[in-house]
Amino acid sequence: MNLEEYVLNKARNAKDASRNFSSTSDTDKIKILNCISEELITNKNYIISENQKDVEAAKNTGMSNSLLDRLILNDERVTKMAKGVQKVAQLQSSVGNISEMWKRPNGLMIGKMVVPLGVIAIIYESRPNVTIDAAALCIKSGNCVVLRGGSEAIHSNNALVKIIHQGIEKSGFSKDIVQFIEVTDRKAVDELMKLYEHIDVLIPRGGASLIKNTVENSMIPVIQTGAGNCHVYVDKQADLEKALKIVENAKTSRPSVCNAAEKLLVHKDIAEEFLPKIYSAFEKKVELRGCEKTLKILPQMKPTQEDDWSTEYLDYIMAVKIVDSTEEAINHINKYSTKHSEAIITENYTTAQKFLNEIDSAAVYVNASTRFTDGEEFGFGAEMGISTQKLHVRGPIGIKELTTTKYIILGNGQVR
Amino acid sequence: MNLEEYVLNKARNAKDASRNFSSTSDTDKIKILNCISEELITNKNYIISENQKDVEAAKNTGMSNSLLDRLILNDERVTKMAKGVQKVAQLQSSVGNISEMWKRPNGLMIGKMVVPLGVIAIIYESRPNVTIDAAALCIKSGNCVVLRGGSEAIHSNNALVKIIHQGIEKSGFSKDIVQFIEVTDRKAVDELMKLYEHIDVLIPRGGASLIKNTVENSMIPVIQTGAGNCHVYVDKQADLEKALKIVENAKTSRPSVCNAAEKLLVHKDIAEEFLPKIYSAFEKKVELRGCEKTLKILPQMKPTQEDDWSTEYLDYIMAVKIVDSTEEAINHINKYSTKHSEAIITENYTTAQKFLNEIDSAAVYVNASTRFTDGEEFGFGAEMGISTQKLHVRGPIGIKELTTTKYIILGNGQVR
Repeated sequence: MNLEEYVLNKARNAKDASRNFSSTSDTDKIKILNCISEELITNKNYIISENQKDVEAAKNTGMSNSLLDRLILNDERVTKMAKGVQKVAQLQSSVGNISEMWKRPNGLMIGKMVVPLGVIAIIYESRPNVTIDAAALCIKSGNCVVLRGGSEAIHSNNALVKIIHQGIEKSGFSKDIVQFIEVTDRKAVDELMKLYEHIDVLIPRGGASLIKNTVENSMIPVIQTGAGNCHVYVDKQADLEKALKIVENAKTSRPSVCNAAEKLLVHKDIAEEFLPKIYSAFEKKVELRGCEKTLKILPQMKPTQEDDWSTEYLDYIMAVKIVDSTEEAINHINKYSTKHSEAIITENYTTAQKFLNEIDSAAVYVNASTRFTDGEEFGFGAEMGISTQKLHVRGPIGIKELTTTKYIILGNGQVR
Repeated sequence: MNLEEYVLNKARNAKDASRNFSSTSDTDKIKILNCISEELITNKNYIISENQKDVEAAKNTGMSNSLLDRLILNDERVTKMAKGVQKVAQLQSSVGNISEMWKRPNGLMIGKMVVPLGVIAIIYESRPNVTIDAAALCIKSGNCVVLRGGSEAIHSNNALVKIIHQGIEKSGFSKDIVQFIEVTDRKAVDELMKLYEHIDVLIPRGGASLIKNTVENSMIPVIQTGAGNCHVYVDKQADLEKALKIVENAKTSRPSVCNAAEKLLVHKDIAEEFLPKIYSAFEKKVELRGCEKTLKILPQMKPTQEDDWSTEYLDYIMAVKIVDSTEEAINHINKYSTKHSEAIITENYTTAQKFLNEIDSAAVYVNASTRFTDGEEFGFGAEMGISTQKLHVRGPIGIKELTTTKYIILGNGQVR
């Protein structure tokens, strides 16, 4: 079997399995997930020893410590994965619900029923826990899944998929609902991205180049989980104590994640008071880079370059710009942001409303940290990532967002 | 300016215009649309004379009468377009509404606000009325639009866009909200489909090859408006009078549209009674093709070939299959349908529920004609087409479906 046939087979198996799996009851999905969770615990040592092979190989190729850390599975992490699966099992499912139903003048009743998407493909990078998280979320939402993990984690992923399959079979279902592409050749991804007749949605999880590749080359509809060049704007009528606390939290609580703030915009009227406070709070911890006006107040700061405004640092770096008005702040954000999360700090009602209405991002905050853009924090339970595209889902992708709807129409003989 | 720059400029102008237009009030959108409607009436003769150029050219190239009919604009049709724009103006807008809002344990209020998608590109074929319909629906939903019509209608489309621009400017807005690609070179479409940084959604309106081209080559997310290989299944517990009326309506009321029925499945227990009725009702009007079992009852019918089951005839042709069970009917439909609209005729509650739950199509009917899958009939007012994909919208694409949401989060100093 050549590569093309191999990948097509995986997709076709998932599609075939999804015909039955789409109407599986939530009780059965809970059973499947609990079995997977148990198998993870039972086979902990096997998983860790397979993972060890990936870790050794990565060390030999000189992988950086931070990437290595993402790859490692230990007792604690496998236990956490198993608990995560149980948690997903317990989430409130909306599959089968009818979200609205209305009556037409001719007596037809038209309703919108929540149904699974069908088959979801996930392309991801080095973190093996994605194998478990993604499979659990897809199963819970009634979808079949085609997984394609990074080559660095191939032993770990193979082991985890084996465990998932054991769990599914112990619960009495077909393991075909979770497909795994073992071939690490990049061409497998190219083949996968053509299969729009078998796969309903493709979700890339990883860095900018992975996402760009899928957006530009996939024939399957993509849900883009994008970068976060997030902004905090401190208005002239801000409570500066709140502002300080929020900027600090948004920048430093976890700088490596997409909802961390990267840019600070400050209204000119409070810049002289506020900026020195931020500067001393951040001293030695965060590298601040300033626009021309900022440097007049704090000449010790490094000057910004044009490309600072569009960069997602994912590090202890923040660029600062002084603006003349809320208007200017909004225009700057809408021009440079990645449409992830932006916050305004203000006590003024009209300014807050203006910001909420005019900022074009997935999540727009008043007086809170951008760090809350997260499925857990929004109350969705687990999530598959944060969508920065506009089609289908914007913001955290929970199990609800892994569904679609169909219309059901109840008649008594109506014709047109 | 080369072609690449020309198309990029159009997209960029639309994106720039959309920054302001997104937050335009519904009152202003109504004003714009009413002005466009008035301009259409005022300039009726100009439009018809420009259309005449396209019609003459089409006649010279020997265009078929049915295609020619789609191209022609006359007094009545322009008046109808103008009235259509007024009707779109009056639709209930949901832009700016907050569809749900919930409170988190930490006091954050999280709401989902309906917002325009941004910039929508529409690629369409010969019917010039799409220029007006699409522009009106996009404007009403707060979107800017990049239009790309077929070369056969270039004079008509140029004239209509000129009128749209006059209407927009008379109402005091920038004509940049509606962009039109005048270049008829097919390469313009190739360039357009790359511009995912400026265009949020692409909607192809036309035949199968146009749709396949956008699905396979567009880097912009596509809303697919697909073909309709629609089925009617007459169950053993059907009211045969209802069944006859519905099958007749679904097949013959307008065979050239996507919601017309193409296939008839009949339960074996009632086949001998029902099929002769259909046969005599359809005599000389509809060509019936039968499966092997059908031919045993009605040997005068033409036999079906394998590819009949997946063909959308769009004509007075219908293929008939006798099935042993509802199960078999559901499996056949899920295998061969284009996931548009399917109907069951039955008086049995459990059978109806099974069909509703297990059929994987945009619209699933009990005891009604598939012909109701339509924005107008669903109560949405006008529509942009019928989506047969699962992402974002399934079924009729009304103005609500041309929007997305953003999260607004109201805090009082929360940090994570």
